[in-house]
Amino acid sequence: MQSYAGPEFLKGHGTENDFVVLPDPRGELELTARRVRALCDRRRGLGADGVLRVVPSGLLGEQLPADVPADAWFMDYRNADGSVAEMCGNGVRVFARYLFDAGLVSTGSVPVGTRAGVRTVVVEPDGRVTVDMGASAVRGHSSVTVAGYAMSALSVDLGNPHLVCLTGELSELDLSVQPGYDPDLFPDGVNIEFVEVLDEERIRMRVHERGVGETRSCGTGTVAATAAVVRAAGEEDGSRFVHVQGGVVEVRVTPVTSTLTGPAELVARGRLGSEWWSSLEAEPLTVSGVSP
Amino acid sequence: MQSYAGPEFLKGHGTENDFVVLPDPRGELELTARRVRALCDRRRGLGADGVLRVVPSGLLGEQLPADVPADAWFMDYRNADGSVAEMCGNGVRVFARYLFDAGLVSTGSVPVGTRAGVRTVVVEPDGRVTVDMGASAVRGHSSVTVAGYAMSALSVDLGNPHLVCLTGELSELDLSVQPGYDPDLFPDGVNIEFVEVLDEERIRMRVHERGVGETRSCGTGTVAATAAVVRAAGEEDGSRFVHVQGGVVEVRVTPVTSTLTGPAELVARGRLGSEWWSSLEAEPLTVSGVSP
Repeated sequence: MQSYAGPEFLKGHGTENDFVVLPDPRGELELTARRVRALCDRRRGLGADGVLRVVPSGLLGEQLPADVPADAWFMDYRNADGSVAEMCGNGVRVFARYLFDAGLVSTGSVPVGTRAGVRTVVVEPDGRVTVDMGASAVRGHSSVTVAGYAMSALSVDLGNPHLVCLTGELSELDLSVQPGYDPDLFPDGVNIEFVEVLDEERIRMRVHERGVGETRSCGTGTVAATAAVVRAAGEEDGSRFVHVQGGVVEVRVTPVTSTLTGPAELVARGRLGSEWWSSLEAEPLTVSGVSP
Repeated sequence: MQSYAGPEFLKGHGTENDFVVLPDPRGELELTARRVRALCDRRRGLGADGVLRVVPSGLLGEQLPADVPADAWFMDYRNADGSVAEMCGNGVRVFARYLFDAGLVSTGSVPVGTRAGVRTVVVEPDGRVTVDMGASAVRGHSSVTVAGYAMSALSVDLGNPHLVCLTGELSELDLSVQPGYDPDLFPDGVNIEFVEVLDEERIRMRVHERGVGETRSCGTGTVAATAAVVRAAGEEDGSRFVHVQGGVVEVRVTPVTSTLTGPAELVARGRLGSEWWSSLEAEPLTVSGVSP
């Protein structure tokens, strides 16, 4: 007999980058890597690209980054494989949409704490959410290998690491396997964007996220891609509509910061099964994809 | 602002064949094909292989199959593409687990109405669920084509149509595209099973479900596969453990009926977003996978 007195959850997405949101107002959730993997398992669990735990920054103690105010809400973001991540531009839009819908914040600017520092978020009247993504730091050139073919890549830092490859037609790229990169430069992995310039206003992008694989969108990736394209066009600042597989976002980069504007939608709210949630402490995870 | 006063749902799976369960005790849900597709979309919705609407048989009126008692619960099963399906052996286990967990039925035998007729279901003390799947009718031989290679197939009917191919090693089969079959014999499509005999007690199976693609399990498919293997072994009746990608089930076939025993688990319960659910009436569905 399953009862449903486990943790509250919501399911939502931003440009089809999807998340399980876990409200944790008292900082009580024991969110192990195993539970994250189980939640994100698309058939045995709820299914998502990642988990967003919503916790008051003041409850994080020594783990709170220095520039995050204690009265801000903190986005504890985890990848589907259970690993911790600094920041996610689609995730923070879904996170802000949750705060707004739940009445935890009102309209206007809202500070959100992340492991990459504080981010200012605005819920727009049309329902889209704009996120201040901070400065994009271009680090220099490296290379990426796909199917044995090496391409030049620009290293861009957005609080998390990116490699951006300006290339042509994207549809033929096989991103079902991890593209090659220099592990000495990126010992903790790297997000890799492949970008096609459509015209002066629009670019198309595919992305391979570390710890996840190819996804239909990656918020920080759209900013890194725009920063690389704006730089290549010789502009000081500029904006682009970025077409990803999951939709369209608008990115503006300046020498001092960047903003990402795009949709965010929550589709359902509920509670996890108590026995299921408890069982994730007691038993080893069955490896998905391997038949007994 | 999203509120969550939409329909109640549960998410669960049987051997990783996963479902959104929609309790509809008063028969009020307008479950259009578009809403089914949106619910089953793994990134824009909740994500599932199919939807199980739980409705009293007595409310179906003229749509109720003749042999289903009006006081039974009816499993209104829809595939992820929005099409109607007769019966699903994993779905009916999850359906029975819901009825039991919700206190709508007690232990022992429970009749469940389906479009393929009434099915008797037993929730076992160990939490597994046994389903009477009815007689498997072997119709004759046909063929199936995978990657240009034709193989012999046995046509087996379980209320829905199956083609079973007894073959060797399964890991090399490419089931990412629709296998070929005779459309004159199966104008509404057909489920196709590929089976490897491991020993006298165990078989391994992969399955391509009509309207879905390859799935990690298919309940009626495991019965069709066992019926074909038992027949090939010259047995009158027999049982097999069927290893599918999502786990293991136990199937028994006799000349007059068949049973399927396997796990069923519900992991979460909640309500759909009111605005999201309502919007699925007003706007055309964005075609997933196509960038604007």
